[in-house]
Amino acid sequence: MSIQLPQGYRFAGVHCGVKPNTTKRDVALVVSERDAVAAGVYTQNLVCGAPVQLDRARTPAAGFRAVVTNSGVANACTGEEGLKNAEQMAVWAAQTVGAAGQQALVLSTGVIGIQLPMERIEEGIRAAAAQLAATEEGFHNAAHAMMTTDTKEKVVSKSFINSRGKTITLAGMCKGAAMIGPNMATMLCVLMTDAALDPADAQAMLKHCADETFNCISVEGHTSTSDSVLLLANGAGDDQPMEEDDRNRFADLLLLVCSELARMIPNDGEGVSHLITVNVYGLATREDAKAIARTVANDVLVKTAICGADPNWGRIVSAAGRAGVPFDTKKVALKINGHLLYKDGAPVEFDKPLVTEAIRSQRETVFQLFFEEGDEAIRFWTSDLTPEYVHMNADYTT
Amino acid sequence: MSIQLPQGYRFAGVHCGVKPNTTKRDVALVVSERDAVAAGVYTQNLVCGAPVQLDRARTPAAGFRAVVTNSGVANACTGEEGLKNAEQMAVWAAQTVGAAGQQALVLSTGVIGIQLPMERIEEGIRAAAAQLAATEEGFHNAAHAMMTTDTKEKVVSKSFINSRGKTITLAGMCKGAAMIGPNMATMLCVLMTDAALDPADAQAMLKHCADETFNCISVEGHTSTSDSVLLLANGAGDDQPMEEDDRNRFADLLLLVCSELARMIPNDGEGVSHLITVNVYGLATREDAKAIARTVANDVLVKTAICGADPNWGRIVSAAGRAGVPFDTKKVALKINGHLLYKDGAPVEFDKPLVTEAIRSQRETVFQLFFEEGDEAIRFWTSDLTPEYVHMNADYTT
Repeated sequence: MSIQLPQGYRFAGVHCGVKPNTTKRDVALVVSERDAVAAGVYTQNLVCGAPVQLDRARTPAAGFRAVVTNSGVANACTGEEGLKNAEQMAVWAAQTVGAAGQQALVLSTGVIGIQLPMERIEEGIRAAAAQLAATEEGFHNAAHAMMTTDTKEKVVSKSFINSRGKTITLAGMCKGAAMIGPNMATMLCVLMTDAALDPADAQAMLKHCADETFNCISVEGHTSTSDSVLLLANGAGDDQPMEEDDRNRFADLLLLVCSELARMIPNDGEGVSHLITVNVYGLATREDAKAIARTVANDVLVKTAICGADPNWGRIVSAAGRAGVPFDTKKVALKINGHLLYKDGAPVEFDKPLVTEAIRSQRETVFQLFFEEGDEAIRFWTSDLTPEYVHMNADYTT
Repeated sequence: MSIQLPQGYRFAGVHCGVKPNTTKRDVALVVSERDAVAAGVYTQNLVCGAPVQLDRARTPAAGFRAVVTNSGVANACTGEEGLKNAEQMAVWAAQTVGAAGQQALVLSTGVIGIQLPMERIEEGIRAAAAQLAATEEGFHNAAHAMMTTDTKEKVVSKSFINSRGKTITLAGMCKGAAMIGPNMATMLCVLMTDAALDPADAQAMLKHCADETFNCISVEGHTSTSDSVLLLANGAGDDQPMEEDDRNRFADLLLLVCSELARMIPNDGEGVSHLITVNVYGLATREDAKAIARTVANDVLVKTAICGADPNWGRIVSAAGRAGVPFDTKKVALKINGHLLYKDGAPVEFDKPLVTEAIRSQRETVFQLFFEEGDEAIRFWTSDLTPEYVHMNADYTT
């Protein structure tokens, strides 16, 4: 898979042994040749990892040179020692480009409640620094070093030529496969562009895009202690502030890249047999639409039904009804994979074997839930719930 | 199992064929010899069954003579025809004791979106009327006729002698085994006493007890379309209004009976291998405590961990953190089955094989989550999540 790289960044990913009993890469380093603006959005979980606490305090701001990531240990629920270790990682990462500790950001994912093996981390950062390169290989190595139980790397890159004739590129890498291991913390994402952005604008764009994409996915609905999305903008492609038209095009690009990355996460959830898209239409507010979509997406009965290719409209409608959103129950309609199953608040006769086969034979199942309360809509992605998921999560450590 | 019956009630349960391909009982009739006060609490799901709509409009009030229950078909999402059918069931049930239709209440549980087979229901009510008896056999038959995928009947009875020397008895029967079949609606409960209560007081007591018991259980967190708890009070044991002391004793009895019944539901959930008790202490409000307990209890990762006998404290603490309740993360402690695993917001060294064995070897797992935000506490019951649960719900209809 060929990927276009933004200018002015170098990448590396190595194995240093944070993950035991494997030779998989577990430390990634991304550096910017120039000072970059960084924006971040983070987990809403009160119990959050040390790297989240560090990054949240530092972003949005300008002047960043490095992001260091490790997988295997989340550095969450690790107290003062954990915070010191996160700061130390930032110092080592910044040193690789001659910068100060506060010019780096840190991401960690893996087991909760264990201290980082700091000697290995130091060694890993040193080894990664020696391999830093503006190459696709370096980029893929960094993306792999983020992974925990992910089965596939998750990378996307897009470009456009701006009004001044310069090519602006945005590339992103993320990991996430649900909190599927014992105490695994879930999703991390680093987005890198060579456009120039000011911190407040970068933060506003990133927050909007995260709300529309990463905040519209779930596997089992457990918000982890470590979720983080970072956006770096170094201006190496064009160092002039963006004109309004270019800013709009960049915002569209950011949404597209986040959207493609976000969709990869439930699609690679542990034991998943179906990616489920929940489209909700016709609510008074976007929050109402999201509350209904999220309740349907996280409903264990809905997820098990799709695992069994069962067009079980009753569970979907009932899940919508318990979302805490007021609606006229006589004006609800539902389609699964384009087949109308429910209309005007009552079931419709349908060809059940046909719809069952439509679910069974495709990786993606699409729900369309229609209401008549207003014009707001949302799209939400989730995975089905399979016996394999339960086995993996029940049997992992014991 | 011997059960003490409240005075002035008769019971019956028969098979009439609402449930296909079985000879299991599916229609229950409970009648009171005297006008009874009835209170009710019902599902919060916007999408609710026709019987819920009928009963909610009729209670709390005095003058009731009959409660008719069917299992097999929930009469939910059935539109105007469903409402008419529920009213017709009430008429038939009331006629068995020479009363008017509005003196009866209706409960239905089973598949959503299917109309009741009204000829069978009429036949069933007639057959039940012929068998009505103030006997334990009649009581057990009625309790069995409520069941869907429950593996055990769920009945409790308690008495006390009041200050006037009269014996007051409270008996309850309930069903519930999660929304485990295709479109099954979940829990129903009928409580019967021979005490005298006025409607408003009966309603207040019932609401309080339901909040403490039936609203503190879950299997997968899906609030069904049909949940209903009814309390009948006919004054046959003592027709005088209760003195304050007796009222307090009755309220304690009601709480105890509801509590024992409620606990039976997750303990009989489909595929369950552990009943999990979530005790949460030290929050500013009871609502805060409940929000944390509910989030932990419904967390798929917590439930799968207990299925695997994994003392996975990180998932429990992380679930508490995402409940939307503010707390000092440095003042959290956790015990599982009495073993301290987490204290002052940090993990404690513990004997993992010992705690694993303590979970594996017992049917009940007890969490104690301690906070330092106030004095409010709650107890919540749930079940673990097993591969068998997923198989049952994925494979039921296809």
